[in-house]
Amino acid sequence: MAAPLVAAAAVASAADPLPSWNDGAPKKAIFEFVRRVTREGSADYIAPRERIAVFDNDGTLWAEQPIYFQFAFAIDRVKTLSSVHPEWRTTAPFKDVLTGDIKALAASGKQGLLQVMAASHSGITTEDFNTIVGSWLATAKHPRFQRRYTELAYQPMLELLDYLRSQDFKTFIVSGGGVEFMRVFAEQVYGIPPEQVIGSSAATKFVPVGTDGKPALIKEPHVEFIDDGIGKPSGINRFIGRRPLLAFGNSDGDLPMLQWTAGGAGPRFVALIHHTDADREFAYDRQSAVGKLDKALDEAQRQQWLIIDMKRDWLRVFSAGK
Amino acid sequence: MAAPLVAAAAVASAADPLPSWNDGAPKKAIFEFVRRVTREGSADYIAPRERIAVFDNDGTLWAEQPIYFQFAFAIDRVKTLSSVHPEWRTTAPFKDVLTGDIKALAASGKQGLLQVMAASHSGITTEDFNTIVGSWLATAKHPRFQRRYTELAYQPMLELLDYLRSQDFKTFIVSGGGVEFMRVFAEQVYGIPPEQVIGSSAATKFVPVGTDGKPALIKEPHVEFIDDGIGKPSGINRFIGRRPLLAFGNSDGDLPMLQWTAGGAGPRFVALIHHTDADREFAYDRQSAVGKLDKALDEAQRQQWLIIDMKRDWLRVFSAGK
Ligand SMILES: [Ca+2]
Ligand SMILES: [Ca+2]
Repeated sequence: MAAPLVAAAAVASAADPLPSWNDGAPKKAIFEFVRRVTREGSADYIAPRERIAVFDNDGTLWAEQPIYFQFAFAIDRVKTLSSVHPEWRTTAPFKDVLTGDIKALAASGKQGLLQVMAASHSGITTEDFNTIVGSWLATAKHPRFQRRYTELAYQPMLELLDYLRSQDFKTFIVSGGGVEFMRVFAEQVYGIPPEQVIGSSAATKFVPVGTDGKPALIKEPHVEFIDDGIGKPSGINRFIGRRPLLAFGNSDGDLPMLQWTAGGAGPRFVALIHHTDADREFAYDRQSAVGKLDKALDEAQRQQWLIIDMKRDWLRVFSAGK
Repeated sequence: MAAPLVAAAAVASAADPLPSWNDGAPKKAIFEFVRRVTREGSADYIAPRERIAVFDNDGTLWAEQPIYFQFAFAIDRVKTLSSVHPEWRTTAPFKDVLTGDIKALAASGKQGLLQVMAASHSGITTEDFNTIVGSWLATAKHPRFQRRYTELAYQPMLELLDYLRSQDFKTFIVSGGGVEFMRVFAEQVYGIPPEQVIGSSAATKFVPVGTDGKPALIKEPHVEFIDDGIGKPSGINRFIGRRPLLAFGNSDGDLPMLQWTAGGAGPRFVALIHHTDADREFAYDRQSAVGKLDKALDEAQRQQWLIIDMKRDWLRVFSAGK
């Protein structure tokens, strides 16, 4: 009896490219928009080369609570490096990282955060950094779900990415997260190649003769670009050079990207993920320190942008166990 | 008799994807490298997603003498704008631009050059800038060849770009030129989409409500990134995130990009275009103010990188009249 069941499942999947989305307005709106811009002869037809779709990462493609996953990496990296930095045991913000005093760490503010990021993300070659992030992702577990972080990608969004690509959209990440951090897993997890990942970055320095005698790029401690807030439309302009047709975000940091997308001529599709599911994931918006969604929620309501209610609209949340 | 002739020409073209290259070592080396990395089962096989090919623009994909074409645009733009800037008639470096005193302009140095670029490239939206560059390219003529600048793309390089793409290479521009300037023509002339053009950039500023009531990106006067010299490997890392398999350049500003490419594991292909053809194009290298080729020529000889001798290796130079 197994074979017919498998065959039936395959038919169902071919018929519905978004099986992890509940039937409802968002799923319907996605299908309608894609059909509208891809049907040849349609008044709203858009050529494949203009089918640019952009996605925020944290809270849009994978989870971001209780702290950004890249920050969890930074904390683990500071712990590892502390063996060669004994002075960190008595110096803020590093001592707060080492003792797990997140409150004191938060009190050190943006400056403290930048110090932790710089110490954990620089002074090595880009290739060594990739290896270190890869090892961390292969072993580190999320504190609540006890899953690898890459298993906390959102299954409905993976299906959406695949569906859009099947309709000749080019999918990009446009995230406040570090570009080199995301690139380590974006291709395998999201099917998004490195050259389509846009994010914040620190400077790199080219050295014609590195420690192994070969040319190297060394990661420097100073910030080069923050791809958040009004940085997102600038990042899109700099890296893509076309205005997106479709944009998904989940926080106030995405508002300018959504406005820029919506402001283009012709059909555009903008959507917000609203985290409403405390049981399966997390419920947060206007008061959250991570992924605050306040002004963008008001604007989405005003402009009638699509608001995806995770609890209502997603049949399944995580890719875990796939 | 016309039909058989056309058919014969089509066969010849199918048989040789590089008809504007003379038979010789460079043409042979290109074919051999591409076969080596694309033949499945070959020890040096490279998956399509890793087939990244990068090309400098000025002097590599199109001409750059007697002045960079983008600088010719800047001069014309300053002349246009001078009607609303009467003070420019008496202020360096603008008065030197207006009177055509290139020597005085050169004497104003890097600072003067930046002033001319800022005045001609900022204070407008990204979309207006695209329109202005498009109009200029449609009408402006090169002083010697009396051709539109886009007709001075190198036919052998257009064939090479097409050939590489037919072999599943992804082709990128990595140029010191302005990214927004190049994107106006790169897709139509080179078949390279905006998101695969990497270049120098000035900052842009997002404005939620522009003069027409819609969101806008305004081009700002300050430089954000110089994609030249050691900036090229950093730009490749930031925009592509993979090390190229193949790189072409023509000047010392390309040396770090060529070193970074050559330094990768496995097969790599790096090449320099040597401008040796005063009759059909220009002849210049170690002493040239534009496109100086000195250290990179020495290094190419030392490392036995491919050096393309324009006069010897190219049957045809320009795409003009195509
Ligand atoms: Ca987010
Ligand atoms: Ca050049």
